Amino acid sequence: MRYLAIIAYDGTAYCGFQKQLTGPSIQQELERAIRLISGEETTVIGAGRTDSGVHATGQVVAFDLEWPHGPKTLWRALNANLPADIAAVRLSETKEGFHPRFDAIKRTYNYYIYNEPVRSPLYRRTSWHVSQQLDIGRMNLAASAIVGEHDFATFGRPPQGTNSVRQVFQAEWNRNESLLIFTIEANAFLYRMVRSLVGCLKAVGEGTWTVERFIAALNARDRDRATQTAPPHALFLTSVIYE
Amino acid sequence: MRYLAIIAYDGTAYCGFQKQLTGPSIQQELERAIRLISGEETTVIGAGRTDSGVHATGQVVAFDLEWPHGPKTLWRALNANLPADIAAVRLSETKEGFHPRFDAIKRTYNYYIYNEPVRSPLYRRTSWHVSQQLDIGRMNLAASAIVGEHDFATFGRPPQGTNSVRQVFQAEWNRNESLLIFTIEANAFLYRMVRSLVGCLKAVGEGTWTVERFIAALNARDRDRATQTAPPHALFLTSVIYE
Repeated sequence: MRYLAIIAYDGTAYCGFQKQLTGPSIQQELERAIRLISGEETTVIGAGRTDSGVHATGQVVAFDLEWPHGPKTLWRALNANLPADIAAVRLSETKEGFHPRFDAIKRTYNYYIYNEPVRSPLYRRTSWHVSQQLDIGRMNLAASAIVGEHDFATFGRPPQGTNSVRQVFQAEWNRNESLLIFTIEANAFLYRMVRSLVGCLKAVGEGTWTVERFIAALNARDRDRATQTAPPHALFLTSVIYE
Repeated sequence: MRYLAIIAYDGTAYCGFQKQLTGPSIQQELERAIRLISGEETTVIGAGRTDSGVHATGQVVAFDLEWPHGPKTLWRALNANLPADIAAVRLSETKEGFHPRFDAIKRTYNYYIYNEPVRSPLYRRTSWHVSQQLDIGRMNLAASAIVGEHDFATFGRPPQGTNSVRQVFQAEWNRNESLLIFTIEANAFLYRMVRSLVGCLKAVGEGTWTVERFIAALNARDRDRATQTAPPHALFLTSVIYE
């Protein structure tokens, strides 16, 4: 039986979603919990290979399991065997051929900037502290330029064997008290793409970049035209959508 | 010179605001940072003695210092010398006799319940996970009964030399997606009062207590009539108001 699960995690302690030699990963913890429950070795596939330190509230994973006690029991057992910083929000059976990465048609990420003169002790693990006041109007003007189909080579590297054209459905900043929250939805993303975009949009917000420079960087399709990549600990994979 | 500062902290790693033999405290970290900056030994007084694990976004503190470089320099130096889980949001000079606890006329606390079937990895340090769905309407009906001047002996112990009568100006729950947020403003609080109230209001929300039982418990002025005290890690001291 193939199972699909929606996974939330605090990525602070992990080297990313995918198994690495460099440290513990979300995938490894999921496979360990499934092994503890069922005695079966399985490979857990994720919709997005989140980087080291990146969080998720809506990562989608799939795995095969022969264990016969059904999705509800598995869901409970999984949450009982996962560490406190990983949870299975939902779990269900799915069709045999389902692949969480290849079958996804849209992904949404959120990025949080804490925009106050002094750092926040309480948001320190989940936001990027920018002390200079950012102009959200200009950031949204620049962000609107990336909506649509574009070659995003300036902002990241494509996975092997694919080009760097992606379709962005939504890209906007909203303010919630001290937080500036970036929402970006696309068919797929390049490596580092959201963090690179956020770094450049922050440059627009603080005035070191003009909106025109941002658009010229996008059109240049040149990785060297991007500025600072924003740190990973403020990035969340929030949802993955299928047909 | 007497200084006043607004302090934010993640209380996870601390035994509370006040110096204790049992572990590091916010007060101790503040006094250590001031000593590093100025070479002076000073006592930092706080408006509220938050318990072990309790957080703050608006704790108010005061201390005396002869160091002559002024509040703006002191503010920056303080933030440079405090650990990442404590920050001075604001700092200014204040009048000689100012006492952050005795002069306060109102304090506000927030308490966060994460009300979903599955725990949240990302809110785990700052919310109480309650998996049973809570009825916020009934919780607000009960909460409205504590507004006004009451003897709160059921919900806490008064500091030595005072009685247990307190005046509550506001007590209400609001929902923000998965979070139920309790806001309570009073002239002052008994020890454990907010957490004890939240524990009893949660019993009302899940239906194990009726609203009538909550009101009868309040009127009984008997500590034994309270149910479970809510855990500390979801409580925030958010503001302190002076004349």
